[in-house]
Amino acid sequence: MTFKEKGLLFVLSGPSGVGKGTVCRALRERGTSLQYSISVTTRKPREGERDGVEYFFRTKEKFKEMIAHNELLEWAEYVGNFYGTPLQYVRQTLEDGKDVLLEIEVQGALQVKQNFPEGIFIFLVPPSLGELKKRITGRGTETNDLIENRLSTARTEIDLMKHYDYVIENDQVERACDRIEAVVTAEHCKQSRIIEKYKRLTEVD
Amino acid sequence: MTFKEKGLLFVLSGPSGVGKGTVCRALRERGTSLQYSISVTTRKPREGERDGVEYFFRTKEKFKEMIAHNELLEWAEYVGNFYGTPLQYVRQTLEDGKDVLLEIEVQGALQVKQNFPEGIFIFLVPPSLGELKKRITGRGTETNDLIENRLSTARTEIDLMKHYDYVIENDQVERACDRIEAVVTAEHCKQSRIIEKYKRLTEVD
Repeated sequence: MTFKEKGLLFVLSGPSGVGKGTVCRALRERGTSLQYSISVTTRKPREGERDGVEYFFRTKEKFKEMIAHNELLEWAEYVGNFYGTPLQYVRQTLEDGKDVLLEIEVQGALQVKQNFPEGIFIFLVPPSLGELKKRITGRGTETNDLIENRLSTARTEIDLMKHYDYVIENDQVERACDRIEAVVTAEHCKQSRIIEKYKRLTEVD
Repeated sequence: MTFKEKGLLFVLSGPSGVGKGTVCRALRERGTSLQYSISVTTRKPREGERDGVEYFFRTKEKFKEMIAHNELLEWAEYVGNFYGTPLQYVRQTLEDGKDVLLEIEVQGALQVKQNFPEGIFIFLVPPSLGELKKRITGRGTETNDLIENRLSTARTEIDLMKHYDYVIENDQVERACDRIEAVVTAEHCKQSRIIEKYKRLTEVD
């Protein structure tokens, strides 16, 4: 019997416009060992799109069946079409010992967290958030209303952060990728994962 | 007011002979941003050793005073001399926003954990531990006594691992260094640390 380490699910999310897609593409180009989940959709394939490559294309009936049978890690409706993450692909890939990276909107990520709490949740923040305080108080010339408005937006973002394990600043795409790769490496070195492996190794059968 | 992030204390430990010193030296040569703690000792300086560089050289009276005033993160007696880690240096370096790496024996590391539980504890394991199961069961030709003995040693090591946050295999020095650097990066991206920073940033005073 050889002990096989299971893969880990990493969920990359963050506010709209933060550059999740760009970071994800840059990571793919690096050729890391991460696997990327393919979404299911009910929209029609566009020219050149292949089933099981860009998306899994399914009918609305089939999609609703998948929802009913808990076969989706998360799903959402967007301009009349459904989009979702198939649980089976993620589960199988993890069982095969490979890590999965899921790039997803904040609401979807929170659904994943409910259905798969053992995932590792990474929140990407805009490059400017590091200068938040400076921006908010400005040069002392902003109106109180403007400052209040900015504070309110910042507080909403910060309130969502608390559901995540890591917060990564997307100041530069390559640096954000470095940090994500560091998180992947470090998570595999966590004592709670390794000790389980060694415990099993000492259980001679 | 600018928010200043505090440094983190990383404690590198592991069984005797695992190569802690080698890994630590290799890390230093990389020129990371890690700072290295200098020990206090009561032994006489050897030719060329300078106070505050290799060690802080102190009298036994002074050392006992440091123990009495809780000025040491950990200490031990070894062949008639005392050795310890001065708390003040570690605290000041962390306050300055720099990370500290402390390379230390397992017993010392457990003392540090008691005195400084917010440290991040890394357990270095020997390169062969990954082949533990294979070694333990061997080719089926080993005596039961031998297998039992190996299992017992392995269980003791595993029992110490549980006090640590990360377990890193020292299969190759450079790979072990990569993993330690990944842990340092990932720890700084932890939500609990970042959210505190952003929370303070939104508290306009």
